[in-house]
Amino acid sequence: MEIGLIGLGKMGNNMRARLKKAGIGVVGYDTNPAVSDVADLAALAAALPAPRIVWVMVPAGKITDSVITELSNVLDEGDLIIDGGNSKWTEDFKHSELLSPKGIQFMDAGVSGGVWGLENGYGLMVGGTAEMVERAMPVFDALRPEGPRDEGFVHVGEVGAGHYAKMVHNGIEYGMMQAYAEGYELLDAKKDIIKDVTGTFKAWQRGTVVRSWLLELLVRALEADPEFDQIEGYVEDSGEGRWTLEEAIENAVPMPAISAAIFARFVSRQDDSPSMKAVAALRNQFGGHAVKELD
Amino acid sequence: MEIGLIGLGKMGNNMRARLKKAGIGVVGYDTNPAVSDVADLAALAAALPAPRIVWVMVPAGKITDSVITELSNVLDEGDLIIDGGNSKWTEDFKHSELLSPKGIQFMDAGVSGGVWGLENGYGLMVGGTAEMVERAMPVFDALRPEGPRDEGFVHVGEVGAGHYAKMVHNGIEYGMMQAYAEGYELLDAKKDIIKDVTGTFKAWQRGTVVRSWLLELLVRALEADPEFDQIEGYVEDSGEGRWTLEEAIENAVPMPAISAAIFARFVSRQDDSPSMKAVAALRNQFGGHAVKELD
Amino acid sequence: MEIGLIGLGKMGNNMRARLKKAGIGVVGYDTNPAVSDVADLAALAAALPAPRIVWVMVPAGKITDSVITELSNVLDEGDLIIDGGNSKWTEDFKHSELLSPKGIQFMDAGVSGGVWGLENGYGLMVGGTAEMVERAMPVFDALRPEGPRDEGFVHVGEVGAGHYAKMVHNGIEYGMMQAYAEGYELLDAKKDIIKDVTGTFKAWQRGTVVRSWLLELLVRALEADPEFDQIEGYVEDSGEGRWTLEEAIENAVPMPAISAAIFARFVSRQDDSPSMKAVAALRNQFGGHAVKELD
Amino acid sequence: MEIGLIGLGKMGNNMRARLKKAGIGVVGYDTNPAVSDVADLAALAAALPAPRIVWVMVPAGKITDSVITELSNVLDEGDLIIDGGNSKWTEDFKHSELLSPKGIQFMDAGVSGGVWGLENGYGLMVGGTAEMVERAMPVFDALRPEGPRDEGFVHVGEVGAGHYAKMVHNGIEYGMMQAYAEGYELLDAKKDIIKDVTGTFKAWQRGTVVRSWLLELLVRALEADPEFDQIEGYVEDSGEGRWTLEEAIENAVPMPAISAAIFARFVSRQDDSPSMKAVAALRNQFGGHAVKELD
Repeated sequence: MEIGLIGLGKMGNNMRARLKKAGIGVVGYDTNPAVSDVADLAALAAALPAPRIVWVMVPAGKITDSVITELSNVLDEGDLIIDGGNSKWTEDFKHSELLSPKGIQFMDAGVSGGVWGLENGYGLMVGGTAEMVERAMPVFDALRPEGPRDEGFVHVGEVGAGHYAKMVHNGIEYGMMQAYAEGYELLDAKKDIIKDVTGTFKAWQRGTVVRSWLLELLVRALEADPEFDQIEGYVEDSGEGRWTLEEAIENAVPMPAISAAIFARFVSRQDDSPSMKAVAALRNQFGGHAVKELD
Repeated sequence: MEIGLIGLGKMGNNMRARLKKAGIGVVGYDTNPAVSDVADLAALAAALPAPRIVWVMVPAGKITDSVITELSNVLDEGDLIIDGGNSKWTEDFKHSELLSPKGIQFMDAGVSGGVWGLENGYGLMVGGTAEMVERAMPVFDALRPEGPRDEGFVHVGEVGAGHYAKMVHNGIEYGMMQAYAEGYELLDAKKDIIKDVTGTFKAWQRGTVVRSWLLELLVRALEADPEFDQIEGYVEDSGEGRWTLEEAIENAVPMPAISAAIFARFVSRQDDSPSMKAVAALRNQFGGHAVKELD
Repeated sequence: MEIGLIGLGKMGNNMRARLKKAGIGVVGYDTNPAVSDVADLAALAAALPAPRIVWVMVPAGKITDSVITELSNVLDEGDLIIDGGNSKWTEDFKHSELLSPKGIQFMDAGVSGGVWGLENGYGLMVGGTAEMVERAMPVFDALRPEGPRDEGFVHVGEVGAGHYAKMVHNGIEYGMMQAYAEGYELLDAKKDIIKDVTGTFKAWQRGTVVRSWLLELLVRALEADPEFDQIEGYVEDSGEGRWTLEEAIENAVPMPAISAAIFARFVSRQDDSPSMKAVAALRNQFGGHAVKELD
Repeated sequence: MEIGLIGLGKMGNNMRARLKKAGIGVVGYDTNPAVSDVADLAALAAALPAPRIVWVMVPAGKITDSVITELSNVLDEGDLIIDGGNSKWTEDFKHSELLSPKGIQFMDAGVSGGVWGLENGYGLMVGGTAEMVERAMPVFDALRPEGPRDEGFVHVGEVGAGHYAKMVHNGIEYGMMQAYAEGYELLDAKKDIIKDVTGTFKAWQRGTVVRSWLLELLVRALEADPEFDQIEGYVEDSGEGRWTLEEAIENAVPMPAISAAIFARFVSRQDDSPSMKAVAALRNQFGGHAVKELD
């Protein structure tokens, strides 16, 4: 089997390696000619046997959009595009509608595992028809972790469902990280009692209720920098957390913990907090409480 | 009528003025001799006709504790102490038990109104017996706002109940301020749409559902410094908010909004967030997401 | 002056009364012929002197949309439509674009005050050009509360800004109500200490930091039904709260208290909580903790 | 080696089995004579070689308190008591002070793993002196999971530190469960998109960022009852979550996600919500919004 792979960054490059190791031929394209197998998408199409499978692994939004649009012009009826990036699930409908009149199939694949996927395999959540899933299964089997297929791969539903599941996966991930982080902050604040913060997290890796892969990563991070002296408490958020919260609002699903995780990230990026300025100003007004004045 | 008033700071001094205006004689004591009428508490006791009423208006905690302990040695059976400070309600039981064997009566009075109390009167929530309330009513009537007594004064229950009600009052106050502050931050973030943030708050003062005294204070603050350029988003918390939350936990009362307000204050006082460092470290571990490194 | 008023329900009917009291002629239209002055929108247009002002006061969404679309066919160049309903601010752009080619002006007006507006006047936040604002000012002056104009009326910005401000107003309102409600629940849970819950809220009406119009309404409600025995804890949400939260997400504004208020409403409407089922199932799995089994 | 084990319920009984399997003799005592090896604590003391080690595994609070008090009367200088229950960490100081004058040593051990501990071993977090830890190490090694000692056992600090770490562990656990639960609720609400909710969780078990032991348990639970039809969304909370939150408040540590998890449990146990009654009443007052009246 041979597939096209567009985007050879941190994720795409690792996926190429994993696919090749499983005996799947890969024609890779990247805007960086140094890592690209072909000059452009037309050359990629030409290099693949029809009917083609092309995996798109580029940043979500405009770039994914333009790649898929360009592919719609160089691929043929019967080809299959799989969007493995972090696209918003509603984008999948748009792309599916764009490709459908040309007879080009479209699937979405939520991919989890980060830089560890090369070694561990990638958790996969896909959306599309049963026929498409069957067709691309060798690719999924190459990318997913060892072990039973249904513990690292799921056909979630029609197109869009894979990214939807991945979106919720990331929302949960935000909540879990926030939970560990709050616990860390409390332990760290009680150093008079907790003489070994890193050792405590390390000891939670076996037997406890909170053991997880994220915990193992936290232990790695603490062992490398036990006081997080080298790290600023500044946290970006990719779109999935926000979209999860938007979906919660839309569907009247209470989401207090995951939203707390998202808001904590927003605050982490502020130099100063407008809302806390307002509260400080209010306290000063009614109580004459001193405010910290800026110079 | 004549009472003793201990603590002549921002609050106590205003209360003295309001009491005198109502024709109540005040013997004031403060550790600052420049504003004190008497040299010490013994002199205060000597200067008052028995049975005495003494209003304690000093910082909650150790100072209130030591003042009441000292009063227990200079007052006589039949005297009445009113703690008008922001004491924790459980302290009231302790003080009541200390004074009871000596026949000294004890009441607690939650006092709201801040620096505006001199002009507007103070909202009063008191705890004690009906007899004590009746005895001190001229004092309460002098301090409370104009208008019907039950719109600015309440006998909440036995000793401790006044401070309990004041504690919850402050918890609500935290939540309200947070609500205005979040709304402010959003309006402030949308200056492309909202051309007049101050004017918007100003226009909410009449007719709207959100009109309140706090809103009027926010308008005053915005008119003085429309961008809060002079104010740092750093907010202290006195004990009442925390105690309210502790009571919520103790009584299994969900308190998501008020707790959010308290946590926002905690964050506002941090130079950097340990929990957000942990989340940044985690993201770096699994995704290779860049962290902001500290120099 | 004479204006058209579409929608004579709870709000529209009161507004008609207030406008008439101020000497403004009103031609009212409602789908209910019993309260309507004219048979249809064409008749309404015919009954008004050109250039016309028409105030639309119908449910947001499809109904507002169809009324404005129909008006675009019966009004003429130079006429002015004011949408006073609770439309989403993004709808205003759509309506403005629909009307602009026909030379029909469009403004949005956020209106606060509920059923009390007839008596107290309505807080008004409007979006549009300065010229439109000036033209409609007699209408705004009739509807807004007594007192200085800028304490009950604001020209927030271009079209859409009025509904944006009203949306945030409602978000704040959600947060404030939640704060009072949490405080109420705690006081209510401590009846051994708090002997007079209603009296406590009543006493907060003067002098305190938490005094507000909402507090007065809460006192009215408690006086009518002190234990809320007649009321179920089931709370709908109109769109504004959700839109406020969506905007917070979009603009990276932390909104923990207002979101808590919205989530509490979501929970209030559930017969049982899927998420709490999941937590109960988890506890049962790891700890053998008994679950409450359904029959 | 031989130890005394007090409390032979779900946890204690499993621990006895695991200790025996490791070749450690166990003299067990329980109030239920059918499972007890000895008639009372005096008989337990008599049956053990001095200096003795006694592990207490009974419900936290009064029962632990009375067992330790009774042990203080039947044990001798040089004996060692280990409290393995879910005691509040501040209790440990009290017990240590009670035993110290008699020369009886005291350690606290936080134990995680639930009913799975028999098979998997128990995660252990202990507080005490290095000497005590060394002395009891064979017991810890028997109870902890296979693998490197420091991945299932930690000497956290002085007495109290073990229970402190366990308390925070449980707080984190609450937050993690809430995160999964919120994600579950959203997926469950979108069944039009998500055709296989159970399959989605199942597929997250390998390769993904959210994989964990709790996730595996959730999959087990979903496979047994995919719609949680047999489970009510009613969730108890043991003390540790509340204590974690109290400690956060005490130490000014923001804890929005873990607190959200705790509050969600509080709500889950209410027949109706007093706070939501208050909000419903308020909306009715200002907007004439219908309330759901109770019969």
